[in-house]
Amino acid sequence: MRKTVSILGSTGSIGKQALNVITDLSDRFNLFGLAAGANIEVLKEQIIKHKPEVVSVRDEKSVLALKKEFPKLEILFGGDGLEQIAGNRQNNIVLIAVSGTAGLYPTIAAINNNIDVALANKETLVSAGSLVMNLAKEKNINIIPVDSEHSAIYQCISNKDKNFIKKLIITGSGGPFRTKTLKDMQYATVEQALAHPRWSMGSKITIDSATLMNKGLEVIEAHWLFNIDYKDINVVIHPQSIIHSAVEFLDGSVIAQMGIPSMHIPIQYALTYPQRCKGLESETLNLTQVSRLDFEDPDLNKFPCLKLAYQAGQSGQTYPTVLNALNEIAVNEFLNNQIKLTDIPRIVEEGLNKHNSVSATDLNDIITADKWGRGFAQSLIRK
Amino acid sequence: MRKTVSILGSTGSIGKQALNVITDLSDRFNLFGLAAGANIEVLKEQIIKHKPEVVSVRDEKSVLALKKEFPKLEILFGGDGLEQIAGNRQNNIVLIAVSGTAGLYPTIAAINNNIDVALANKETLVSAGSLVMNLAKEKNINIIPVDSEHSAIYQCISNKDKNFIKKLIITGSGGPFRTKTLKDMQYATVEQALAHPRWSMGSKITIDSATLMNKGLEVIEAHWLFNIDYKDINVVIHPQSIIHSAVEFLDGSVIAQMGIPSMHIPIQYALTYPQRCKGLESETLNLTQVSRLDFEDPDLNKFPCLKLAYQAGQSGQTYPTVLNALNEIAVNEFLNNQIKLTDIPRIVEEGLNKHNSVSATDLNDIITADKWGRGFAQSLIRK
Repeated sequence: MRKTVSILGSTGSIGKQALNVITDLSDRFNLFGLAAGANIEVLKEQIIKHKPEVVSVRDEKSVLALKKEFPKLEILFGGDGLEQIAGNRQNNIVLIAVSGTAGLYPTIAAINNNIDVALANKETLVSAGSLVMNLAKEKNINIIPVDSEHSAIYQCISNKDKNFIKKLIITGSGGPFRTKTLKDMQYATVEQALAHPRWSMGSKITIDSATLMNKGLEVIEAHWLFNIDYKDINVVIHPQSIIHSAVEFLDGSVIAQMGIPSMHIPIQYALTYPQRCKGLESETLNLTQVSRLDFEDPDLNKFPCLKLAYQAGQSGQTYPTVLNALNEIAVNEFLNNQIKLTDIPRIVEEGLNKHNSVSATDLNDIITADKWGRGFAQSLIRK
Repeated sequence: MRKTVSILGSTGSIGKQALNVITDLSDRFNLFGLAAGANIEVLKEQIIKHKPEVVSVRDEKSVLALKKEFPKLEILFGGDGLEQIAGNRQNNIVLIAVSGTAGLYPTIAAINNNIDVALANKETLVSAGSLVMNLAKEKNINIIPVDSEHSAIYQCISNKDKNFIKKLIITGSGGPFRTKTLKDMQYATVEQALAHPRWSMGSKITIDSATLMNKGLEVIEAHWLFNIDYKDINVVIHPQSIIHSAVEFLDGSVIAQMGIPSMHIPIQYALTYPQRCKGLESETLNLTQVSRLDFEDPDLNKFPCLKLAYQAGQSGQTYPTVLNALNEIAVNEFLNNQIKLTDIPRIVEEGLNKHNSVSATDLNDIITADKWGRGFAQSLIRK
């Protein structure tokens, strides 16, 4: 059966690769909608090449600009546009690859309309994990993770094994500062922080990889996706990025997913799930060529963001929401050269200390906490 | 539901560990039968401790010796005894841990009586893979491998993934001669060849590990268990023995099973399958403690047995049966100090060259080929 797919965030790194996957497997997929943010030029090319039935852009101005070139195309905009595309029942699956909390509402719209979600947006589960996972359970909808780590774990857990999990092992390359000192991090430029050794990704996630906040967000996401206690989620630094994560079972057996560092594999897996098929990469994993895999513990003194994420996760309620909001603003300000890389954990920690948390089961409370976090981070930076 | 289990080969390395597993999980298992070979003293202790309902021993003399001490116990003997225990319908699962082709008949007896088989005997599938797997399919019986490599692969293939396998990756420590020269192997003593760096096993399999014939037999066994072409089964040397084997899928994703080198884990998995439960080992895999994993290609010049096994497998018919028979005799003669370690591949190669193969679908033809191989090896050595 052909699947109908929409891609939210089609001009980002994940969105572009997803379009490659769909083009490569054109006998398996129909494209329904595309949604993009600021990058209208790339979206135009995508419209010409991939012929979506509907697109959504950031604002009304962009609608008008597009309308001239594509007079017959249905063009939506804003949060409403994302939700309308995600919730359209023509979809079998929606890839949520917009960055930030913008992913939350369309994820909920898809689930509410019984559409599977390929989730490439961490913030959705970090901010609103309890709400989203409960809804997905209630509607019996698959949330298939696209992040390489969570895709790995998802692939490692077969149906017969899902009740016997003891622990999750989330691996990470350690980012560009793994072998550097804390002082190096204090004086790091944006360029240095963006120079990730293994993965080519968007700038927000690349900075999160440099501070290891990315691993922290992944721990929280894994907690919700797989319903595992924080004490049973370990982070292991693995510079070669070949083992993408692993699961330890009750009997001591560990199942790991491995592969060359390519996002095509987890994106394709999420879209073709539960099937697999030949993919885009001509190269596959050759262990004897890789020759060696290394593992070490993360340095929590150099990377306090990881510790803060565990603390926020374990504290529960709206703490993870606020962690994510504080971090998003701080990363943005670092990318704009307003603060140092090492200011990011400082801002996050201060915000978490000041936050008055509430239960994170109501969407309004989550949005309020998110706004509070953003405002607090901004006020701290503007002071 | 409690499972009723019989253990054939209870006084060997796997059999003893299986009894540990059953004792540890006494709320899950009932013991039905035990069978042993020459080691009557150990069997006596096992009878006292584990109270089987029936036992089988090698010959009538041993029956009489046991009868004095256990007058009320049902005591069988010989090949018939093995078959009677394996085929008794009280069993839910039978562990076949006898060594050599002695495992073949009881495996068939179990399958014929709709009893699952935990298979720790390589020779059964190497000699009669086509016949045994066809029978298991026909009777819809699980053959759950106990060998750490095949257990790993079995654990890596979930039901939803089984149609999407591209390749199997069988790992091996490389044995005691991995870092030695061919000359070292020529002059190797039995003691040196028995000094396996990672696994504590019986002497036959330890010698097979020293020559890499063990990997070769595993390749043939994997071919039958998982129905994969020989060209899609790779052997990778991995000295730390942490990754026990892996499966590459069509999309380039590789699922691997890892763990500390302990046979308790695969034995328990085979017996509790499809469930998992807490096992005997207090220690579990700690990747940062392991710190490093290495991989290299096997050296086929130093280890011609691996090449011979691939050739026999690819030639099909009764060639694998004869490979196994020739090797079994040659290993035995090496253990008795009658030949050099490097004579083993020489004898196997000569036998394969002289063998007139027939189709391996009839049990009599397989037994005839097995006998021919043994006779040929012996005649070569006695010459």
